[in-house]
Order: sequence, then structure tokens, then C-alpha cells
Amino acid sequence: MHPTASIITIGNEILSGRTKDKNINFLTGALFDMGIETMEVRIIPDDIERIASTINILRRDHTYVFTTGGIGPTHDDITVEGVAKAFDVGVIYHPGAVTILHDYYKDQITEARLRMARTPNGATLIHNPVSGAPGFRMENVFTLAGVPNIAEAMFFSASSMINPGAPIFQESVDFHIGESLIAGKLRDIQEAFPDVSIGSYPNFREGKIGVSVIARSRNHTLAKEAAEKIREIEI
Amino acid sequence: MHPTASIITIGNEILSGRTKDKNINFLTGALFDMGIETMEVRIIPDDIERIASTINILRRDHTYVFTTGGIGPTHDDITVEGVAKAFDVGVIYHPGAVTILHDYYKDQITEARLRMARTPNGATLIHNPVSGAPGFRMENVFTLAGVPNIAEAMFFSASSMINPGAPIFQESVDFHIGESLIAGKLRDIQEAFPDVSIGSYPNFREGKIGVSVIARSRNHTLAKEAAEKIREIEI
Repeated sequence: MHPTASIITIGNEILSGRTKDKNINFLTGALFDMGIETMEVRIIPDDIERIASTINILRRDHTYVFTTGGIGPTHDDITVEGVAKAFDVGVIYHPGAVTILHDYYKDQITEARLRMARTPNGATLIHNPVSGAPGFRMENVFTLAGVPNIAEAMFFSASSMINPGAPIFQESVDFHIGESLIAGKLRDIQEAFPDVSIGSYPNFREGKIGVSVIARSRNHTLAKEAAEKIREIEI
Repeated sequence: MHPTASIITIGNEILSGRTKDKNINFLTGALFDMGIETMEVRIIPDDIERIASTINILRRDHTYVFTTGGIGPTHDDITVEGVAKAFDVGVIYHPGAVTILHDYYKDQITEARLRMARTPNGATLIHNPVSGAPGFRMENVFTLAGVPNIAEAMFFSASSMINPGAPIFQESVDFHIGESLIAGKLRDIQEAFPDVSIGSYPNFREGKIGVSVIARSRNHTLAKEAAEKIREIEI
């Protein structure tokens, strides 16, 4: 079986439209490059019960689960409690994280900042090279920050704990016409290549209609053969 | 009870990181402006079973469900089948949609383009002023295109079928310091205003750390009072 992933984006500010999420596109792309397909993303509110129940559904179904958001120092940062509840463990001040925060803030350490040393009991820390306060891992669940550059840095820190899958190869063919005109032929090619996933993505660039057709497969030869058939479509 | 919404974003290209979704931020914001809180977003693959089961979970829990993506003319556009399966109805060539497509494409109409007239049996059409092919509604489930400007236009077309909720008021207070420094006071204010949702959103603009604190409530007076208390925080 190939590894799969799911992502849980936690934050009322995303659900109210106030903040544009940037982590989903980064994480899905980085995982894809590691041969790991993201099968589902859920964006949910800052709510301990919802976080716990969502984690418990997804961690059983997928090789890896990534959460982003809600691990800062304020009252609305309750992801730690949600993860702890999912695993039915308590929340502790993680000794390693306490040391990291003391080293990072030195004499500027405060009670609020020390809250960022809290993790579910049993967590492994994920290094944060940007702003000190670490993320953490519980089994196959990786909890990252919400601020995009910190989330990205934490993902790279965590990547040594993630087993890549076999590479997924993508071959892309662009047409400068509407996708309707190649739809019939694409359907035939998809039927001829059941182990290749062929996607048709219309675009409107500089006022011109076009379509990118992507042939995806773990079998590079098949992806290339399918792309060749797509390229040969006569319009 | 206030109306709620959920969004289902359908598309392998979003889950592979190839395409950045733009519809979630637009829809959540537009719904929020109508007094409708989005409680959950799910991004799922182009898979009929997954589409049907996800719709059937969310349409029971929320006043409105919006789907985006997968209603074009190609083989990988299978949202119509997914919605039809959720409602246990067949897929038909909707007579109104057939007329629209004939009017739009005139003598350029093709079999592939006519596929975009397919809807679940019993659907109400949603006007598409951008590119002809309509979206559709089944009970409280609104199916929109994936291309952002078309999805937006369809949402506005559908808005007459959506009952707004009582307005949600937001008051914003910006600080040019790290959120840790106000975390304790914010917690106290949140406790004093249980009917106001106070969110703390750190930012890093032009290399400077800052935080936006948002007080949200359907009660404008309470939102303003909470914001005033936040503004009065002495650092």
C-alpha cells in the first residue's frame, strides 16, 4: 500500500474568510513530491471536541495526519488540548520544549510564552528554526504552526520522521483550446490507461482559453505513454 | 438557530498541490458577510462515492452546502454523478440547461459541451453569466464550478436562494507587539464576554511582528465593548 495523508486546518479565521490559508497548498505539494497522496483536507473551527474527533477519524484512515494552527500562546490556541483529547492523554509542560523556550527567550520568558511548551503527554517535539516554540508529533499525527513560514519550516524538520512513497510521475500537455474539444479523446485514452490518472484543467490566461492535461502515475513509462497519446490528439 | 454552511471542494488537482484553491476564501467570506458561519470545509478527490458520502454527512448538519469543481465536460468531471448518488436520483439532460447551452454555443454545440447540461433529476439551475454552462441546486446543496470567476458568479446567482442570518459584527484591534504580551489580558476579556468570540492572529508584516485581535459577535454592542477593553490593554 502506498502512504496517504490528510490535513486538518484549524482556525475560525480561515472559516470566516478573514485569513487565506496558505498551508494546504504547500503541504499537499510537498507530500506529493514525497510520493504521498493527500486524500482529504478538513478545515475546522477552534473547538477541542471537533479537533479531537476529526483527528480520531483521520488518523485511522491515513498513514499521516498533519494539523496546522492553534498552537500559539493565546486563549484561542487550543490545538494541544484537542490532540491530547484525541489520544486520551493529559497536557504537560514538555521538559525539552521548556528548555527550548528558555534558551530562545532568555530573560524575556513569560508565563504566556511558556504555554507554548505545553504538549500532549508522550509527544515528540518538531524543531522550529523560525521562532523557537516547537511543533510536536503524537504517533502518526504531526501538529504544526499556522503561520505559513513556520509551518513550512516545521514540515521540513518533521520530514525525517516521514517515510516517502514511490515517486508519482506527472506528464503535462497544454492545449490552447477549450477542453470540450478534446473531451471525447481524453475519455478514450483514460479508458486505455487504467493505471494512469488523467486530469483536465481548464485555464483562462491573458484572456485566452486553454487546458492543461496531466497524466499521473507511479509507473513512469505508462505516464509517458499516456501523455504521448494525449499529445497526438488531432483537433 | 443561526444558519450554517459547509463547503466541499472537489478536485485531485487541489489535493496534489498542483492548483491553489481560491474558492474557499471567497465563499467563506461571502457567507460570513451574509451572517452565515461556515462550520467546516472538506477537500476531497474526484470520486463519486466520496462526493456522495461527504454531501450526505454535511447536508444533514448544515443549513447550506456548497460544492465547487468537477462540473466540466471531461471524463474526470463526475460531481453531477456524486450529487445524484447522494440524493439517490438519476442523472438527466436538464431541458433548461440544454436550451442554455444551445443558445450559448449555437452551431458550435458538441456532444462534449452538451454533457454540461447533465444534472441530478430534480435540480434547479444556477445561472452562469460567465461561460453558459449552469450550476445547480438540490435542496440545500449548491453545486458550483471550480474555476474561481465562474464559481463567484454562480454564488451571486444563487444568493437569492440563500436566507441570510443576523449580521455578525467584527471589531478589530491591532498591536505592534507579539501576542504573548497581551495573552493574559485577552484571556480575562474573553472570560468576561462569553457571547463574543475573541481571536488573536499574529502577523509578520515588513519584518515586524504584530497581532490583530478580532472581537466577533451577533451583538454589536457587546463586540464594541469587548474591543474597547482590548484597546485599553496596557502593555
